[in-house]
Amino acid sequence: MEKYKRNERVASLIKILSDNPNQLFSLNYFSELFSAAKSTISEDITFAKKIVEQMSLGQIETISGASGGVKYKTYIDKAHIVRFLDDLCEKLREPKRIIPGNYIYASDIIYDPNISYMVGQIFGTYFMNTGAEYVVTIETKGITLAHMTARALNIPLVIIRRENRVTEGSTVSINYVSGSSKRIQTMFISKRAIPEGKKVLIIDDFLKAGGTAKGIIGLMKEIKVDVVGIGFLMKTAEPEQKLINDYISLLEVGEVDEQKGLINIYKDMLFS
Amino acid sequence: MEKYKRNERVASLIKILSDNPNQLFSLNYFSELFSAAKSTISEDITFAKKIVEQMSLGQIETISGASGGVKYKTYIDKAHIVRFLDDLCEKLREPKRIIPGNYIYASDIIYDPNISYMVGQIFGTYFMNTGAEYVVTIETKGITLAHMTARALNIPLVIIRRENRVTEGSTVSINYVSGSSKRIQTMFISKRAIPEGKKVLIIDDFLKAGGTAKGIIGLMKEIKVDVVGIGFLMKTAEPEQKLINDYISLLEVGEVDEQKGLINIYKDMLFS
Repeated sequence: MEKYKRNERVASLIKILSDNPNQLFSLNYFSELFSAAKSTISEDITFAKKIVEQMSLGQIETISGASGGVKYKTYIDKAHIVRFLDDLCEKLREPKRIIPGNYIYASDIIYDPNISYMVGQIFGTYFMNTGAEYVVTIETKGITLAHMTARALNIPLVIIRRENRVTEGSTVSINYVSGSSKRIQTMFISKRAIPEGKKVLIIDDFLKAGGTAKGIIGLMKEIKVDVVGIGFLMKTAEPEQKLINDYISLLEVGEVDEQKGLINIYKDMLFS
Repeated sequence: MEKYKRNERVASLIKILSDNPNQLFSLNYFSELFSAAKSTISEDITFAKKIVEQMSLGQIETISGASGGVKYKTYIDKAHIVRFLDDLCEKLREPKRIIPGNYIYASDIIYDPNISYMVGQIFGTYFMNTGAEYVVTIETKGITLAHMTARALNIPLVIIRRENRVTEGSTVSINYVSGSSKRIQTMFISKRAIPEGKKVLIIDDFLKAGGTAKGIIGLMKEIKVDVVGIGFLMKTAEPEQKLINDYISLLEVGEVDEQKGLINIYKDMLFS
């Protein structure tokens, strides 16, 4: 007799796979864990696959062959994304968020682990097939979003620093001009962070003119890695012409009017 | 006839609950989601509970009464923690991690989403019953660990800045003396970040003399919130006497010898 019942095995399998997104588990692993035959595990996987797809809880992929196995892939459908982004816009429109100078206070939202998780799921779904091997961001406000994207894709996160720190070891740096303030600044990346030739995804919270993003792209070129995708949570409508191309942004911020307590923010056309 | 089979409902229920740790779901929610009677959902929950406990995958808690429901609580047992910390020590002992000045390069480990996830699970388990309502950290290296702890506990993350930023709105700041370098520095927190009287957890990557941590505690006092727990990934063995008390650290770093390529690092006694 088998040690665990089918519903116990299937539920555990889904939990373990989805706790470790994009990580390949061999059939042997589950066969040993559940003390069950590989043919039984195969059937369990078929059940698990059906369940997650039917409930829109992601995707389970099987890879056949000697080095094969099973893995969970982050996937959320457009209806879920649209609902989440609509809720997010509503939160961001609260007039009390306006900071003198027509900025929006959004730290509480960006750092909310439920929201960063969902943003990571969206970027994970969108960039799943880019072959990205690292997620890169610059300190500080994009970190939670980049972190959850890295988790969804099961790839390492790398944080570019705005100051040179001894704990990073030798660094490569570049000077860049902030697109909005026109100030010259420097950014630093540890030489150990990403080997040459790797594919990276750039994730950040906010795109205004694009000076910082352009700086990151320049730094990536400097360390000889390929940028295969760029994602922002928000971009400003103005300036319309950004210093970078080929990016996605989930939200667009229009006029912020302190007098009227008005924040114009909406989903990007991509999700309309 | 019911729309979904028991094993489908139980597996989905576990997935949804554990994707949203420490969040209360009403029986009605699942009753509607699965088009099933509440009595059926109650039985499903009993099954789900047994499965996660039997497989050491966390805990499912039911709360009875009108405002009751069911939630998933992060819980990992000591055996899992010990195995994870032993692996982590082994990784951190690699001689190539030594940075001139006897520092250890650990950014790749701290930012690895699988590792930060596990550290978050450990802190989540340890601090589960402190009543913490916010997780606080200071930029930059503790962010991923604090973020995953916040996710495990389903509470917001707050990041203290080392520079005053316009996007934080009005801030409260304090000056502090870094325990190791003896330099005077300033830290800033948004006035909107945490309401008075709340309970907070402080999470950071590294404790040396404790000057920064003491600064954070001072800042929390300034904004009138209570510190109910303090956790570090690593602390140094020297100085033995830190500037703060009542903290836990998962690992302890002893002598780092560049000549011999030796890094002394071990689990804290708590996990031996």
